[in-house]
Amino acid sequence: MNFSSKLLENAVNEISQLPGIGKRTALRLVLHLLKRPKEQTHFLAKSLIGLVDDIKLCKKCHNISDVELCEICTNHNRNEEIVCVVEDVRDVMAIESTAQYKGLYHVLGGKISPIEGIGPQNLTIDSLIEKIKSGDIKEVIFALSSTMEGDTTNFYIFKQIERYEIKTSTIARGISVGDELEYADEVTLGRSIVNRIPFENSLQR
Amino acid sequence: MNFSSKLLENAVNEISQLPGIGKRTALRLVLHLLKRPKEQTHFLAKSLIGLVDDIKLCKKCHNISDVELCEICTNHNRNEEIVCVVEDVRDVMAIESTAQYKGLYHVLGGKISPIEGIGPQNLTIDSLIEKIKSGDIKEVIFALSSTMEGDTTNFYIFKQIERYEIKTSTIARGISVGDELEYADEVTLGRSIVNRIPFENSLQR
Ligand SMILES: [Zn+2]
Ligand SMILES: [Zn+2]
Repeated sequence: MNFSSKLLENAVNEISQLPGIGKRTALRLVLHLLKRPKEQTHFLAKSLIGLVDDIKLCKKCHNISDVELCEICTNHNRNEEIVCVVEDVRDVMAIESTAQYKGLYHVLGGKISPIEGIGPQNLTIDSLIEKIKSGDIKEVIFALSSTMEGDTTNFYIFKQIERYEIKTSTIARGISVGDELEYADEVTLGRSIVNRIPFENSLQR
Repeated sequence: MNFSSKLLENAVNEISQLPGIGKRTALRLVLHLLKRPKEQTHFLAKSLIGLVDDIKLCKKCHNISDVELCEICTNHNRNEEIVCVVEDVRDVMAIESTAQYKGLYHVLGGKISPIEGIGPQNLTIDSLIEKIKSGDIKEVIFALSSTMEGDTTNFYIFKQIERYEIKTSTIARGISVGDELEYADEVTLGRSIVNRIPFENSLQR
């Protein structure tokens, strides 16, 4: 592309580094920014800087939070004996929107994926094991997506915790195998939590 | 959506105001920003602020530029007697990439569209007429996309300038009717400029 302006070129280059956004789309977005009031783009830019500079992960569950301990972890109406293991904040949002789950979460930050170079040490698995060792947790619910990486991660964690006296379960799959949690409708997802099954049972399929 | 963080929510809301980007896509983009080095997002934010604060339109052709008069308008190797009328900077970029055109441009900033509330007064048509009145221009090439709005805009300008002794032409349509200029391949677009036809001829179809 042959830009008539360095400012235009810079903005297009920076935007096109985002996943799924090519140069043409970036140029279309930039021309849109130039047509709307400047202030809106100032707000956008400030929100991005605020995001990367000030965002925190909850020290207990590792979910995205603006404070040291998130609203869920500090809510005394939640059942602290149940922990639902999820991949990222989108899964927490999806499960919370069902209003069916009253335990806590543990956000792994990803799934074990040798191809992408993500091992157990890149996730918050050690922190989960520590929680379980402390003895306050009675049940772990695995709610990772049922892909190969999700199954591998579930199994890796299961092997680490099976020595402790703890109930393990996976969310019931009303959701079709291979689907991402966040795209499931709320009713199906809510039901899959209510009907969760012992993890051992999920291995016989 | 039920956000665990105001910073997260703000960023998602601002990004999802861009055309073609919904809340889910915005959330995916935001999670990507949180995984890459902070500095990259600072660069992105600064490029957006620089864009909207400092960008200029060339005083002569109204193309996006970092200076008062753009590189094309100040290039003495260009033929100042020919002006190619286009909708926006993307069309200038598309035609420049053919390396077939050596005249100047006039960027309208849009097309006449009663439905979108865009009239001649919202475009740079008056400035084009002034240029033609000055008598230095021998030919006007219409290179708007061949949609109803493009045809209306061409015709509106044609009626304003037909009283002056000036050649008018439209780019040859090897490009199929209704297609946007910026998606045409370079060879077809280059040929359509070389084979341009008198504007009057384009009315008989
Ligand atoms: Zn928490
Ligand atoms: Zn110019």
